[in-house]
Amino acid sequence: MEKQALLYEGKAKKLYQTSESELLWVEYKDDATAFNGEKQDVLSGKGLLNNEISSLLFEKLAENGIPSHFEKKLSSTEQLVIKTDIIPLEVVVRNVVAGSLHRRTGIEEGTELHQPIVEFYYKDDALGDPLINHDHIRILQAAVPEQVESMKEKALAVNESLKTHFQSCGLILVDFKLEFGTTADGTLILADEISPDTCRLWDEKTREKFDKDVFRYGLGSLQDGYTEILKRLGGSVHD
Amino acid sequence: MEKQALLYEGKAKKLYQTSESELLWVEYKDDATAFNGEKQDVLSGKGLLNNEISSLLFEKLAENGIPSHFEKKLSSTEQLVIKTDIIPLEVVVRNVVAGSLHRRTGIEEGTELHQPIVEFYYKDDALGDPLINHDHIRILQAAVPEQVESMKEKALAVNESLKTHFQSCGLILVDFKLEFGTTADGTLILADEISPDTCRLWDEKTREKFDKDVFRYGLGSLQDGYTEILKRLGGSVHD
Ligand SMILES: Nc1ncnc2c1ncn2[C@@H]1O[C@H](COP(=O)(O)OP(=O)(O)O)[C@@H](O)[C@H]1O
Ligand SMILES: Nc1ncnc2c1ncn2[C@@H]1O[C@H](COP(=O)(O)OP(=O)(O)O)[C@@H](O)[C@H]1O
Ligand SMILES: [Mg+2]
Ligand SMILES: [Mg+2]
Repeated sequence: MEKQALLYEGKAKKLYQTSESELLWVEYKDDATAFNGEKQDVLSGKGLLNNEISSLLFEKLAENGIPSHFEKKLSSTEQLVIKTDIIPLEVVVRNVVAGSLHRRTGIEEGTELHQPIVEFYYKDDALGDPLINHDHIRILQAAVPEQVESMKEKALAVNESLKTHFQSCGLILVDFKLEFGTTADGTLILADEISPDTCRLWDEKTREKFDKDVFRYGLGSLQDGYTEILKRLGGSVHD
Repeated sequence: MEKQALLYEGKAKKLYQTSESELLWVEYKDDATAFNGEKQDVLSGKGLLNNEISSLLFEKLAENGIPSHFEKKLSSTEQLVIKTDIIPLEVVVRNVVAGSLHRRTGIEEGTELHQPIVEFYYKDDALGDPLINHDHIRILQAAVPEQVESMKEKALAVNESLKTHFQSCGLILVDFKLEFGTTADGTLILADEISPDTCRLWDEKTREKFDKDVFRYGLGSLQDGYTEILKRLGGSVHD
């Protein structure tokens, strides 16, 4: 496998073409951004931590019968993934009230939801990734209704799998964001990343935050938080 | 029928108890507010215009087989309505892109939608009446799923009826907001008001705005706009 031309550079990752047209080479960067790009920093080691954690989580999902774009880890900061046409929706699943759900509904932060909830956001930085409903998805032609239903189902399956896994590591999976894409043959699969950049993860006892909120709200060292998550998942920064 | 104790004073109307427990006496005020109360004014004649227009529209809906809380007009600024437990949701139907739909989706203002869309907002001034989805409605216990479906259906029926009616008056029904409530026996009915305060109405040819946007964006005299709407609906300020 060969890394070829840079296809796209996002806020957290770079995507490169490879010698195989249906595979992409992903490089996790050390850049951290929050509040739609208003807060930025370069945090050495972040790319490595996210790559390790994301790889472990995609492997765990595969074990549990949930396929994704993840093919294999290439290095401490790189992955090989299946190329997709990304659906411009961010699919958020929540088990506990935090962040914008608290601000939107007034429900107290930390409230456990009896049943997970799913939200769709329109992936558009210029618009601030707004919450949208099924009718908005239709007029934006972001996805067809069958895809929306399928993403919701898959997102809830990912939630069941990861919630249990994190629980066994002493972590509460508060919420997380997924992206989906369609492969060359039109199949809808889970793509992008699952990392502390895209999940809220709290210690089950102290409720200490180990995820990107540490950076968002200046609660300490982001790398310390992410390292703690990796450790609890049974990984290490040296493999 | 007798007007009794003031039950509630909102931004646009006062509700009074009556000698009949299942009826309310509604008084339309001259107060105008916009941007969640940031902009305010008292506009003499507004209450009368909204009462006349709302009464005509509720009557038109009844003619078309769509019941509401409206019983009868009591005076130029007053109505008798059926008392309900208001469901804390604002149900918005849109035929043409304007306002927050433009800001949310980036779709150009004035774009006609091939099919109307429906949005639910959580009726909570302190939270700024945020857009919510069906899962949020569930966790907020704002309504049960059957009520949500029924509100959507009824809102679309109201849209079909009013869109056609306004069309015959040379007006485009761009969008509007409805509120629903449950009566003493649990029946879900259309409540609140349907007026230029809660609808966007444009001239079919010039696209001139005659609704509350005139006040929101300082486009001229609100009373002139509302008077034009009343005139086109065949009403007059003197009946
Ligand atoms: N399998 C894939 N195929 C194509 N694009 C992908 C795949 N997985 C993720 N992407 C996209 O890679 C881009 C880069 O990721 P990232 O830096 O996180 O971007 P962003 O700034 O949009 O968050 C994103 O637009 C993401 O949607
Ligand atoms: N049939 C009804 N029964 C009970 N409450 C009603 C009915 N129709 C409207 N209302 C409520 O009357 C209140 C006053 O109206 P308004 O001044 O428009 O209030 P707001 O400031 O909430 O917009 C609103 O809370 C509205 O939900
Ligand atoms: Mg990203
Ligand atoms: Mg009102």
